[in-house]
Amino acid sequence: MVATTEREVETQGQGDARDITDDVAGAVRASGCGAGVATVFVVGSTAGVTTIEFEPGAVGDFNALLEGLAPRGAAYGHHLRWGDDNGSSHVRAALVGPSLSVPFRSGRLLLGTWQQIALIEFDTQPRARRFVVQVVGE
Amino acid sequence: MVATTEREVETQGQGDARDITDDVAGAVRASGCGAGVATVFVVGSTAGVTTIEFEPGAVGDFNALLEGLAPRGAAYGHHLRWGDDNGSSHVRAALVGPSLSVPFRSGRLLLGTWQQIALIEFDTQPRARRFVVQVVGE
Amino acid sequence: MVATTEREVETQGQGDARDITDDVAGAVRASGCGAGVATVFVVGSTAGVTTIEFEPGAVGDFNALLEGLAPRGAAYGHHLRWGDDNGSSHVRAALVGPSLSVPFRSGRLLLGTWQQIALIEFDTQPRARRFVVQVVGE
Repeated sequence: MVATTEREVETQGQGDARDITDDVAGAVRASGCGAGVATVFVVGSTAGVTTIEFEPGAVGDFNALLEGLAPRGAAYGHHLRWGDDNGSSHVRAALVGPSLSVPFRSGRLLLGTWQQIALIEFDTQPRARRFVVQVVGE
Repeated sequence: MVATTEREVETQGQGDARDITDDVAGAVRASGCGAGVATVFVVGSTAGVTTIEFEPGAVGDFNALLEGLAPRGAAYGHHLRWGDDNGSSHVRAALVGPSLSVPFRSGRLLLGTWQQIALIEFDTQPRARRFVVQVVGE
Repeated sequence: MVATTEREVETQGQGDARDITDDVAGAVRASGCGAGVATVFVVGSTAGVTTIEFEPGAVGDFNALLEGLAPRGAAYGHHLRWGDDNGSSHVRAALVGPSLSVPFRSGRLLLGTWQQIALIEFDTQPRARRFVVQVVGE
């Protein structure tokens, strides 16, 4: 059985992170499946999905790591293409990746207690950001 | 329902990237499934799969980031093992990851307009590189 | 069909890596499925899963890359939250990611010869670390 849930969140850009664990858990419940996999996928090439202990310290540390790796103010080949200013956003997103696959059983995600599902907006500007939860199970 | 598609591409090594979105979309169409998940998996430990806006600027920026992180010319413990010269390839591949899960609905991948599926060859030499698209859906 | 396998390994912390390929292959065999996807998911926010050529050189190179990116001894916002010392563990885990999706056919994982599935413990201390293999197939 497959059940598709689409959501949109308003993000503030530049590392704005959202804890979407409840959205994913809700999609699993709504599917009626007992066991399976919830695939979380963020639409677009300037955001990413991962898991993290969702508290401001750890989220800030992760953004600081990415700023060190791909500084917003550096020169990027992508800027020459469109006159964009978000080359740092593209490479951060490609590195973190857009998809995450979370197993569930008895209708519950098999996450750790301190492990939340985070959507992180890497674009430099606020965005209406879409993501999909695809539940495949039985 | 499960449908397996295997493909091989000739890559030039050292960051050569291929837009395989059409291959993945074709595998979904050929499966006859309406909704599900396409799992893209690159075979081997010196290549990766992610999504990116597939234009030379952004792809070059991503390779430049990885060259900064894991320079081709640095010393690697892996070189001592086999006399290989591709230690940088192995760590880049482990970091980017070999798998990507893309949901689809009504037979169409739920990608953004500027979001393509990229296979990136991290090996230092040209390779015949295999990848798999596993469609699970209904 | 969905089959859930849970495993626990005792890890030594600080980059201790385990080749869990046989566990994943065994979960696929035990499921009785011929074709599908094995989703490997590590429970908790201080460990990761990826593929690598599992030999000490390459695994050490990968840990050295991560130590360069997120040094254990650096200052982290996460430390201020709980008095923890594992801020480096959290950001490494978020970057590598907790999930991996591996296709299989004829009951066999479609991995390369030198491509193993690695669970890497990023926490600073030894842990009893759980992971899940969720097999979805037919």
